[in-house]
Order: sequence, then structure tokens, then C-alpha cells
Amino acid sequence: MKRTAYFISDGTGITAETLGNSLLAQFEAIEFERITLPYIDSIEKAEKAVAKINLAAESSGAPAIVFDTIVDKKIRTIIDSANALKVDIFAAFLAPLEAELKVESSYSVGKSHSSTTSTSYLARIDAVNFALDNDDGARTRQYAEADIILVGVSRSGKTPTCLYLAMQFGIKAANYPLTEEDMADLKVPASLQQHRHKLFGLTIDPDRLAAIRNERRANSRYASLKQCYHEIDEVEMLYQREQIPFLSTTDRSIEEISTRIMAETGLQRRLQS
Amino acid sequence: MKRTAYFISDGTGITAETLGNSLLAQFEAIEFERITLPYIDSIEKAEKAVAKINLAAESSGAPAIVFDTIVDKKIRTIIDSANALKVDIFAAFLAPLEAELKVESSYSVGKSHSSTTSTSYLARIDAVNFALDNDDGARTRQYAEADIILVGVSRSGKTPTCLYLAMQFGIKAANYPLTEEDMADLKVPASLQQHRHKLFGLTIDPDRLAAIRNERRANSRYASLKQCYHEIDEVEMLYQREQIPFLSTTDRSIEEISTRIMAETGLQRRLQS
Repeated sequence: MKRTAYFISDGTGITAETLGNSLLAQFEAIEFERITLPYIDSIEKAEKAVAKINLAAESSGAPAIVFDTIVDKKIRTIIDSANALKVDIFAAFLAPLEAELKVESSYSVGKSHSSTTSTSYLARIDAVNFALDNDDGARTRQYAEADIILVGVSRSGKTPTCLYLAMQFGIKAANYPLTEEDMADLKVPASLQQHRHKLFGLTIDPDRLAAIRNERRANSRYASLKQCYHEIDEVEMLYQREQIPFLSTTDRSIEEISTRIMAETGLQRRLQS
Repeated sequence: MKRTAYFISDGTGITAETLGNSLLAQFEAIEFERITLPYIDSIEKAEKAVAKINLAAESSGAPAIVFDTIVDKKIRTIIDSANALKVDIFAAFLAPLEAELKVESSYSVGKSHSSTTSTSYLARIDAVNFALDNDDGARTRQYAEADIILVGVSRSGKTPTCLYLAMQFGIKAANYPLTEEDMADLKVPASLQQHRHKLFGLTIDPDRLAAIRNERRANSRYASLKQCYHEIDEVEMLYQREQIPFLSTTDRSIEEISTRIMAETGLQRRLQS
């Protein structure tokens, strides 16, 4: 039986979604339809949300599951009336936190909050712009400013990882594509030498690389298995010889690649998420 | 007094961080040092984590706060021994969910899970590549494939919003910069006409726009208050005349801009977060 899960918030709903999806992932046998209702910040919107939830419960023949992070008490009371199992994230955890910290939370005093500061907005935009400006070895003169420089062969995952590092953590990440010529020289390209301590390598299973490259340029030398095996062999030897830390992107999500890089390099996030 | 908060996970730690930060944001009076310990997936790593937590508790003179999403029972037992208030995300909510869904969770049976599927990995990479390829009006022939096309004046927030939509939701978002010439014509540029239903406008407070543009090109006509006021006047008139939905990016985080666009357009996420 398919169940319906709602993520409800007076803000973006990202916390409710993230936690809710982590919990639902523990129930592999059940298929969930997932619906996010962000910005439920008025009585009227809350009543509409309840009507939707009740309709879904009725048509599926089972109560919905509701994950919510609403702060306002009046709005919460309305959501509570829905035909649903309510996973009330704030209610569950704020009481023990208040007891430990010996202060009341904004939630308890009924005050909504915003965790978005203009400083972190700007830091994120700066980091995203840095990643875009310094993508694919486009320029190297800003490397002094970089927190990290990802290296790897074409299509090993450098660009999305740089963007995720920027977006999620506010890290300034440049990337530089290692070419056959770089690897034939058996050393780190000159423009990277003075920033060696910032280098982090990506590698990937050569069969996977060939499949990805074939989507872009089918049947090219660039996408051939032979070429991919050759490049990956060379690049991994380079990493080992030059003691550049590296990891494989194969079968890993962008989040996982990025958080592993953060952990291995000891980089600290510059944004509060 | 400063308190130390740990986000601990056998995976990326993103769920623990997201939830933990949302909860901590409710305690504005307290300053927290935040430390993420991802990939705590062995007894040895768990013991090291406990040593760190105990040291932090001792030096700050108060127990640490630990938010964790570890599934393995042996590892959890070790973390439980730390001198900390433990906010055990899975333990709190999985029991009521199991009761409602009438199945055991992977957590209860002690099996770790991975919520990352290769399909959603590829959908995300595709969407990020689409955003990069279709940034800043670089090409318009792929607009048939776009889920949404953001329009707005230069530096109104189009690029980071497109990248966030791609990264977080797997949405294919193109963007097109509206220039003075476009606006002088008093209509939607020809290349966008056939995709009118996909257009979504961004606007921004002209003073804020001038400040942002000044960082890029100080004292230029482009960054002048007069120019910014003029462009924003024109672009908002265009949106209204052409009935293009729009919102202001001023004082909003990228998450908020993106989730509001999702809500207003009714676009559904293509990725499980």
C-alpha cells in the first residue's frame, strides 16, 4: 500500500524534508508519495493544508504521515487536527534541550525565527561565483583565494562537487582538469605547484567514466574504454606519486563526495546550514 | 557560556546537521560551537568521537549536545556513553512510525541503508549540467527541455537560484538576462515567446542591486543607482504587463527563493533529498 507523507513548515520545509526523508528511508518495503507544503504561515493556509491531508488519507484508506516544523501555536493546533500520524520535530526535542540549556526556546515563547543571515547569504553567493569563475581551469590566478582545488580527468565529477561545496558549506572550491599532457609530464602542472597543499584528487571507475563520456560524445576516442582506463591509471599513479589525497566518485552521491572531502581535509564549513 | 554541539552520523551527517541547526536556532541567547563528525562507522571511530566529546565537555564545563543518526546498535551504545545530552533522532521517531506503518524499520533490524540511488545521482548531475549549459542566456535551443526559465536583470540572483534548484530538487532551470534592449521593446524577447509558460521573474531592491554591482564593477554606469532604479522599474513593469509571476530576492536566502519558486509554480522535486 502506498502511503502519503507531508513535509510542512512555516519556512522552506527543508528541515522537515531532510529529516522526514531520512526516517522514511528506513522503511524500504513501503512506497511513499511525498508532498512538501512550505510557507504555511497563516490560519487559512493551515486549514487548506489540513483539507489536502484529509483528502489524501481518505483516498488512500490510511492516515497520512506529517513531518512538521511549525513554530506558531495556533497554526500547529490546526495541523494537529488532520487525519495523520504527526512527527512533531520541535515538540519532541526542544523540551530536553531547554532543560539542558536552562533557557526557553523561541518556539516555547511562540516567536518565529529566521536562521538566514545576510552574511551567510553573501558568503554562499561569493563561494558559488568563485566556483563558477574557477571552473575547469578557466583561470589560475585566483588559486591563492581558494580553500581547495579539485583535480581529476574530464567528467570525474569536479564541477558538481565544487558547486555543492560552495552551496552547502560556503567553501571556495576551484577545479582543474588533468589532461593527458599533464600526466605525461609525470608531475603536477606548474600552475598548481605553489598550491599543492590545496589539491584534492577525484578518480572514478573507468567503465563508469566511459559510460558518462559516451553520453556526451558517443563513440569518440575520448569516450573509449581504452582511453578511460589509460587516463585513470595515469591519474591515480600521479596522485600516489605526488601524495595528493584522493577519492573515488563512483557510486557516491555529490553530498557524500563533498562531505568526505570536508572530513578528510579538515575544512570547516563557512556557513550555518 | 558557549556550548559545543556535535552532529554525528554513519553517513554524511547532513540530516543530523540540518535538524540540529534548526533546533539550535531556537536558542538565540546561546552561542554554539558546531562540529560535524561524519562517517562514524566503526567502533574505533566511535571511541575517538567519544573522547573528543568528553574533552570538549570538560573544557567548557558543561555536557556537549549530540545530534545523531547512527543506525548500528554497537556504535550507538558507544556514543551513548559520552558526557552529552543526546538528541537521538531515529530512536525518537521510528517507534511511532513503525506502529503506524506496521513494519519494522531497517534501524530496528540493525541494517544500515543507503538512500542514494544511482538514478537520483544522474538526475542531479544532469540538472546541474543543464543549469551550467543554459546559464545567462548562453543558448536558447534547449529551452524545450527546461522545467523553468528564470528571467531578470544582471545580478538579481538568477545563476545561484538555478544551481540550487538543480542541486536540491533536480529541476532543469535555465536563465536569461533581461537587458535594456529587451525592456525597451516592451515585450518578452522573441526567443522566450514560445516558452512563456515556463518564465519566472526575479526582482531585487534597486539599492541592494547597486551595492552588488558595485562589488563587481565599482563606479560604473552599470552599478549606478540611477541605472539600477531604471532597470528594476522597467523589469517589474514588464512582468506585470506580460503576467509573468515574479518575486523579490532581497533579504531572502537562496533556499527560500528556490522553495518559494517551487511552491508558486507547482513544480515537483525530481530527486529525493
